[in-house]
Amino acid sequence: MLTAAVAGASGYAGGELLRLLLAHPDVEIGAVTAGGNAGTRLGEHQPHLLPLADRVLQNTTPEVLAGHDVVFLALPHGKSAELAAGLGEQTLVIDCGADHRLSDAAAWERWYGGGHAGHWPYGLPELPGARDALRGAKRVAVPGCYPTAASLALFPALAAGLAGPEVVITAVTGTSGAGKSLKPHLLGAEVMGSLSAYGVGGVHRHTPEIVQNLSKACGTPVNVSFTPVLAPLPRGILASCSAPLSGDAAALREAYAKAYADEPFVQLLPEGSWPTTAATLGSNTAHLQVTVDPDARRLIAIAAIDNLTKGTSGGAVQCMNLALGLPETAGLPFTGVAP
Amino acid sequence: MLTAAVAGASGYAGGELLRLLLAHPDVEIGAVTAGGNAGTRLGEHQPHLLPLADRVLQNTTPEVLAGHDVVFLALPHGKSAELAAGLGEQTLVIDCGADHRLSDAAAWERWYGGGHAGHWPYGLPELPGARDALRGAKRVAVPGCYPTAASLALFPALAAGLAGPEVVITAVTGTSGAGKSLKPHLLGAEVMGSLSAYGVGGVHRHTPEIVQNLSKACGTPVNVSFTPVLAPLPRGILASCSAPLSGDAAALREAYAKAYADEPFVQLLPEGSWPTTAATLGSNTAHLQVTVDPDARRLIAIAAIDNLTKGTSGGAVQCMNLALGLPETAGLPFTGVAP
Amino acid sequence: MLTAAVAGASGYAGGELLRLLLAHPDVEIGAVTAGGNAGTRLGEHQPHLLPLADRVLQNTTPEVLAGHDVVFLALPHGKSAELAAGLGEQTLVIDCGADHRLSDAAAWERWYGGGHAGHWPYGLPELPGARDALRGAKRVAVPGCYPTAASLALFPALAAGLAGPEVVITAVTGTSGAGKSLKPHLLGAEVMGSLSAYGVGGVHRHTPEIVQNLSKACGTPVNVSFTPVLAPLPRGILASCSAPLSGDAAALREAYAKAYADEPFVQLLPEGSWPTTAATLGSNTAHLQVTVDPDARRLIAIAAIDNLTKGTSGGAVQCMNLALGLPETAGLPFTGVAP
Amino acid sequence: MLTAAVAGASGYAGGELLRLLLAHPDVEIGAVTAGGNAGTRLGEHQPHLLPLADRVLQNTTPEVLAGHDVVFLALPHGKSAELAAGLGEQTLVIDCGADHRLSDAAAWERWYGGGHAGHWPYGLPELPGARDALRGAKRVAVPGCYPTAASLALFPALAAGLAGPEVVITAVTGTSGAGKSLKPHLLGAEVMGSLSAYGVGGVHRHTPEIVQNLSKACGTPVNVSFTPVLAPLPRGILASCSAPLSGDAAALREAYAKAYADEPFVQLLPEGSWPTTAATLGSNTAHLQVTVDPDARRLIAIAAIDNLTKGTSGGAVQCMNLALGLPETAGLPFTGVAP
Repeated sequence: MLTAAVAGASGYAGGELLRLLLAHPDVEIGAVTAGGNAGTRLGEHQPHLLPLADRVLQNTTPEVLAGHDVVFLALPHGKSAELAAGLGEQTLVIDCGADHRLSDAAAWERWYGGGHAGHWPYGLPELPGARDALRGAKRVAVPGCYPTAASLALFPALAAGLAGPEVVITAVTGTSGAGKSLKPHLLGAEVMGSLSAYGVGGVHRHTPEIVQNLSKACGTPVNVSFTPVLAPLPRGILASCSAPLSGDAAALREAYAKAYADEPFVQLLPEGSWPTTAATLGSNTAHLQVTVDPDARRLIAIAAIDNLTKGTSGGAVQCMNLALGLPETAGLPFTGVAP
Repeated sequence: MLTAAVAGASGYAGGELLRLLLAHPDVEIGAVTAGGNAGTRLGEHQPHLLPLADRVLQNTTPEVLAGHDVVFLALPHGKSAELAAGLGEQTLVIDCGADHRLSDAAAWERWYGGGHAGHWPYGLPELPGARDALRGAKRVAVPGCYPTAASLALFPALAAGLAGPEVVITAVTGTSGAGKSLKPHLLGAEVMGSLSAYGVGGVHRHTPEIVQNLSKACGTPVNVSFTPVLAPLPRGILASCSAPLSGDAAALREAYAKAYADEPFVQLLPEGSWPTTAATLGSNTAHLQVTVDPDARRLIAIAAIDNLTKGTSGGAVQCMNLALGLPETAGLPFTGVAP
Repeated sequence: MLTAAVAGASGYAGGELLRLLLAHPDVEIGAVTAGGNAGTRLGEHQPHLLPLADRVLQNTTPEVLAGHDVVFLALPHGKSAELAAGLGEQTLVIDCGADHRLSDAAAWERWYGGGHAGHWPYGLPELPGARDALRGAKRVAVPGCYPTAASLALFPALAAGLAGPEVVITAVTGTSGAGKSLKPHLLGAEVMGSLSAYGVGGVHRHTPEIVQNLSKACGTPVNVSFTPVLAPLPRGILASCSAPLSGDAAALREAYAKAYADEPFVQLLPEGSWPTTAATLGSNTAHLQVTVDPDARRLIAIAAIDNLTKGTSGGAVQCMNLALGLPETAGLPFTGVAP
Repeated sequence: MLTAAVAGASGYAGGELLRLLLAHPDVEIGAVTAGGNAGTRLGEHQPHLLPLADRVLQNTTPEVLAGHDVVFLALPHGKSAELAAGLGEQTLVIDCGADHRLSDAAAWERWYGGGHAGHWPYGLPELPGARDALRGAKRVAVPGCYPTAASLALFPALAAGLAGPEVVITAVTGTSGAGKSLKPHLLGAEVMGSLSAYGVGGVHRHTPEIVQNLSKACGTPVNVSFTPVLAPLPRGILASCSAPLSGDAAALREAYAKAYADEPFVQLLPEGSWPTTAATLGSNTAHLQVTVDPDARRLIAIAAIDNLTKGTSGGAVQCMNLALGLPETAGLPFTGVAP
């Protein structure tokens, strides 16, 4: 058995990592750590993780995290680089934060500020070339939840030159994407019965990551307009993506079918079926559909994922599997919990 | 007191009409009618309308509806023309259905099929020229809920030549927009915890109505890509709208401020504030914000409305007020019910 | 016009007070005050209250609140007595907090701690004798939301000696009842999709208030088992109440019909109809139903209210109307906003 | 590998059975059948069950169901007896419907009408004596969801003589408990934002089942007052249970600790922690807490389960494991999917 530590275990991404690792046939859970919650029982924060309820959260330090085969970092942005440096080059470090996602230092500085911590292999194996870079890697940058949904929805068309390069994305998300932050607009009474846009006008930090992914996939700069919308559900992202069309419907469908033919976690739905986030709840699967709007001459692609599973922690475990040479699908659910 | 009849009183639009008319200082509620529910107590279907609970629903016939000053039709599409013909030219008929929204007979036939029933004054007073056509009108076509939100969000920019003409709209809606239809995907267990797109690829029937409104407002054909998304809330539409930008941010803001300076029911929010549907719940108000995405070179406009109030029945009452020469705001709430 | 000040205007009870007062024909809104939010625009906290959006929140001090005909206090418990003392005996002070609800000083000390601030006329006019004490009163203690629902559901049976005195209440509530508190268990992601009990075992502070109301109504000590449950909705309380039966169904129904025959805000539903909180949303109405379980030999009574309207701020305005000699129903909605 | 057939595979209980069986190490899924949906793809009805999406639903006949090691019946009440008769005595038949739950023919006739189909071993292994009857059984009656929650919450106290025998239960449930029924009150727009009681006054058909379980456990007739409440979430039951107390808190806690010490799927939470349904989502676990209300002299016990998992299909798989001699926990999740 391999041993895994999870830093940030009292948060949503940390909890989801532990849920998945508990079901993983090849992994044993080692240290579970937290910041302010260190010293408390995990069961206080994650009552759904019964088998770990009596674990006590340790402090998030290199010493506590050292000695595991893999360390997952589910921390606020800016906290990963230093911790990783203390963990040794032979430890697999999987960063669920943003620190190592952007390859362009200038983009990092513009969007996040502070020094660029560098670029790690990007943990979306379905992107062209990404899987090879993840096999045997010792450092992995897990993508953001929106970039996961949007990139999967759009790259086959853009890479095939069938649409683009000015894409428009409105992605609707459940509130766990914001983490367990104590902010008034995230209170249940505010969220339920409400829809709200935020980070409008291209200012959401996932924008440069989507640009990076799509530009790389199609070998030419892609222009991204991205608007996130908060909706009253705990989990789920539905990305509504469009781009000017330069191919026809049949070619499009073929491009998607080809791109995802061998992908275990991406499901192109039968024609006429449209994704629902409920069908992906708790699963590592992305559900996709693509069509053409002949009047508007645009490609429309819709992706549904669970933001905490495929969008964060499931993607992280998938990368761990690749990095450690395990079967890529080990421990990861294909079926959602619905209704 | 003027007398008002409501046809389709057991449905959601009908119920909202009655809720608003109960609070209207100049209107007395006359006949309330239904199709299959005729003969039953209104209280069975609309338990929130206590003062009308013991009213018995009558059949929807011209005879029952005749003799009122105003007749509201909240019926399935295709049912309005014949009823209206039986009501006499001096009765104000306000159609909440689609039958008389489109001016182009060919568009009607393409999108709805069957013969075009003709075009009535279009009930979105905030559109250029619309209010004048509504004053004293005897027939009014109430807009669809999505076209209301999208048109308000976009026309000031397009009319001013500051953006367009290829607009992209993803609008998220609560489930009352689908009416009280007994369909599996509208069951609570399916809807809660889920997001889903539908009518994707430009096939939603509100598309030609948005095209009509925006093309008329800017005097040139506008190309609309429209994707609706269903979200887990009873009421509310949040329309995320964008278009290629041809002006600057200051000019844009000025165009919106000017367009809505005297509009009682459209609120351009202070810069930095973004609309939430919760703030509009039960009110006849649209909350708007507009900004510029400098990287994507697009205008982004967000509108929030209550789909049953400003999006249907509140808009209908606003039109009634104009048509009958009452104060435009009579009986209509400015404040939402939140949280 | 009478002038009203609202202290605690950035919270949920304060917001609901302002929503109702905006629609009140005899009241003009004066000072709106807050604690930590003083100095900010009301629109930041209550975006649904458009007509007041640009009001700036003042500090909650006797000086700011002085000079109004009525002052509403929507403050944390323990803050009212001192403020009220500074307001003068001729100002009507309506306390939405708990400070003056309990008549028994020992009960106050046991349940809240600290010195008892005294007992004000209790603001549930539907209780026997309560309305008379409220007419012309200069101080009013607004009941808690649970005691409002439970007392209305049970007192007619207990006062008539038809059931009791060992009552069991499980009341389910939306999350606005907890106020705008930044606590992890109130986050949207935690609340949605979850039901949870809290304050179990008779430890919720509304218990002694229910005991007080029911004991007074039936002239003998009543024993109350009360369990509150948190459910995923913003507003609404459904109280499921039962007690050992000592009368028959017909006598029970008669007792309720008689108790509420002239009550404008309590609606005993037709036999066979059961209350839903949705039907009360935003209204000042309680919906009730009562029946008998012949096997268990118990009375079962169900009450639905909006916790922020009839349960707090609507009840407060109803009391203001009584205290100031206005029509009791002035400015208060009978109809809910549904669906 | 054992083979399992699922009748009623397009419904909620059927879908949950398939989700669990897909993860079961010893079971292969054979026939999947339906009534009106026969002939359609399973993916149309259960899009979350990707690995089975292309299965075509067959008709629910003994011929189709024959030849499997185990047949699960997730059918409307009254349909199981005849089907089971056609399946042969060596086939394990697990009935998720009510037909074989009640041992008393008179009770059956009173509550369901029609002839009593007989009594099968009752599928709640945690009840005293129940597990032994399930080992090697060829017919199993799966309990109702409410009786599962209420019986687990109450039997240890009643069996130990520490409380009872007049119990009061209010249980709040998500809407999947009503199945995929196309009824207006189950529409999303009606359910969201609302709480409603139903089956009030002891008329819900789960009442006699709770009476049966608790009376058997404590060896004396138990009197049950049961009120179900519908709340806006897809899954989950929170049962709030109380009974007059005849023991003390320490004895109570000991009774529960003892009753559940070796139970893999019942978790008595640490003192001070209260169950939430979210923590049980998709898991086969019941979370329990028990306390004493000293003023009301009552035991209060709260149970949370997922009505589709432990409350129906998970319980059914647990029984299958027992009946077939597999490890009782095989294929069943201990962890919920939260938030």
